[in-house]
Amino acid sequence: MTTLPDATTSVVGVAYLGDARIDVREAAAEPPAAGQVRIRVAYVGLCGTDLHIVHGAMDARVSTPLVFGHEMSGTIESLGEGVDGWLVGDRVTVMPLDWDGTCPACVAGHQHICQNLDFIGIDSPGALQTLWNVPASTVVALPPDLALEVAALVEPTAVAVHDVRRGEVAPGDRVVVLGGGPIGVLIASVARHIGAQVVIAEPDARRRAQIDELGHLTIDPRATDQAAWVTKWTAGAGADVVFEVSGAPSAVAASTGLAKVRGTVVVVAIHGAPREVDLKQVFWRELRLLGARVYERTDFEAAAELLAAGVVPSELLVTAIVPLTGVRAAFDDLEQGRAMKILVDVAGAGNEVAV
Amino acid sequence: MTTLPDATTSVVGVAYLGDARIDVREAAAEPPAAGQVRIRVAYVGLCGTDLHIVHGAMDARVSTPLVFGHEMSGTIESLGEGVDGWLVGDRVTVMPLDWDGTCPACVAGHQHICQNLDFIGIDSPGALQTLWNVPASTVVALPPDLALEVAALVEPTAVAVHDVRRGEVAPGDRVVVLGGGPIGVLIASVARHIGAQVVIAEPDARRRAQIDELGHLTIDPRATDQAAWVTKWTAGAGADVVFEVSGAPSAVAASTGLAKVRGTVVVVAIHGAPREVDLKQVFWRELRLLGARVYERTDFEAAAELLAAGVVPSELLVTAIVPLTGVRAAFDDLEQGRAMKILVDVAGAGNEVAV
Repeated sequence: MTTLPDATTSVVGVAYLGDARIDVREAAAEPPAAGQVRIRVAYVGLCGTDLHIVHGAMDARVSTPLVFGHEMSGTIESLGEGVDGWLVGDRVTVMPLDWDGTCPACVAGHQHICQNLDFIGIDSPGALQTLWNVPASTVVALPPDLALEVAALVEPTAVAVHDVRRGEVAPGDRVVVLGGGPIGVLIASVARHIGAQVVIAEPDARRRAQIDELGHLTIDPRATDQAAWVTKWTAGAGADVVFEVSGAPSAVAASTGLAKVRGTVVVVAIHGAPREVDLKQVFWRELRLLGARVYERTDFEAAAELLAAGVVPSELLVTAIVPLTGVRAAFDDLEQGRAMKILVDVAGAGNEVAV
Repeated sequence: MTTLPDATTSVVGVAYLGDARIDVREAAAEPPAAGQVRIRVAYVGLCGTDLHIVHGAMDARVSTPLVFGHEMSGTIESLGEGVDGWLVGDRVTVMPLDWDGTCPACVAGHQHICQNLDFIGIDSPGALQTLWNVPASTVVALPPDLALEVAALVEPTAVAVHDVRRGEVAPGDRVVVLGGGPIGVLIASVARHIGAQVVIAEPDARRRAQIDELGHLTIDPRATDQAAWVTKWTAGAGADVVFEVSGAPSAVAASTGLAKVRGTVVVVAIHGAPREVDLKQVFWRELRLLGARVYERTDFEAAAELLAAGVVPSELLVTAIVPLTGVRAAFDDLEQGRAMKILVDVAGAGNEVAV
């Protein structure tokens, strides 16, 4: 037998239980604490980090059971004590970073990479639940013309905005994106919007076909001499900016050979092991390798505006929308490369809990 | 029987012959071509690149016989046609870079790393000869109070000035230098002059003792948990700038763990093979890895001024001064770590040629 939970006194969410197991669970709803808002979650996007959690690859970091999820949209359901500037019903997303404000990185103004950062949805409970309490400081207003389905893409788009800003992409630049997953496609879209010319290197033919539809150049890194291709494309100079989004050792090895003298390689992917880097080329061309992690508020706000303006191809990115009970199968689809981005319709029908 | 050559009609130099062989040779002196000056060379410093050449490690690049050497001082002996702005007798050094001016890097203003750079002393004849013809554009005037022995250190000091400028070292910065050879010591001296606090990591105890005399902090990377040491030294923040000057894979592996959030790692050493780099740390702390190669004219001029002002500890750096006939033995001393920097007295006595 299944029932729909009461929407105000109970909360239904998807939790990672450890040992690569997840479950849909119902619990009593907690009121928002002082300084928090409670959000009625609408949509949550599933991302590679969630997949890592569910695979157990982050068991050393996460406390279980963990309600995960950090790409979301929703409306404010209630306000905790002392919260100003928000109204019940406001359409919002959440920038899921909670910093301590006192570490050397915070003091230097880099709160988004606080040395003791709480990434909400990894280090504390995330968005994949019907009601979600978050610090009011993390809430970001949505533009009025941005649909809630699309707004679940603000977080990954903010990653791309941050990466492009960090790489200082300028109009007219030639940009290479290594890896054509959602973040790679978003980086390409943002860079093109700025006025750069972009090529995406992606080994998967199906993904290349999808990316071709967006009007981006694509190359198959397994069938192309990328350095020769980029040299020709840039009239002998090399690329202004290369984004390493694939996580593949071969892409890292290639990246330094694609950038121009004084060019930039932005390290976007998370590399779980040390990678071989051609430091002689870094020296020879005086390259700049930059790490880029998460985002700042300005990136989040810009991402919401870009989505509202239709700059980011949300309809192509979102392969499917599933209920809470469809998360397990969604991860299988993501893992098998059958989907680019899958959203979870947290508020909709089909979210029954077995009792 | 040995003779001293005629100082104006013949030139004596040290040439690399290939197969790891060098020889002192006499030849007819060539007059300076249009746009060139002929320099009576005073002193030439031997550096790691010269050692690489003599080892045969750069046989694929150099044409033999090659008169090598690129750290020097001297006086202008004669002027080629069309050379303005210089007088015979002017005390000078040479910035040994000849760029094409037309490649994308040159057009973008990065002539010092021209895509078709002629590094004089590697790609064309160098300074280890009594008379040396060079493009007038490469000549740099010496401050009047800078002795010619000391002026032979302008080139390596310019490398250090360039590295420190590239790393944007600022007053109050905490700087780690990995590798306490001549370039590492020069970087430390220049960074300290700017107002940074510096520690040099150097495994060789004799070198550490020499560096200690300069008043720099030193640590033994083999006996110290460098990351813990630097974390404590920087009150938990990490170093502002790390210079990788050692060329050692272990130093590269350690480098990213020493830099603060948004800190900088400057790749100064030439790494002959790809190195394992902790890209997860580059991502996590949004680090910046910068290649730094040679120098620009502003670096050369600043280096000459720093040497004239006594900022750079030339007396400690220069272990010995030898004649042209002592180059072979000098390389042995450098290779065995018995010397920091050895100068060749090109104009002095003891430069007999066997005939």
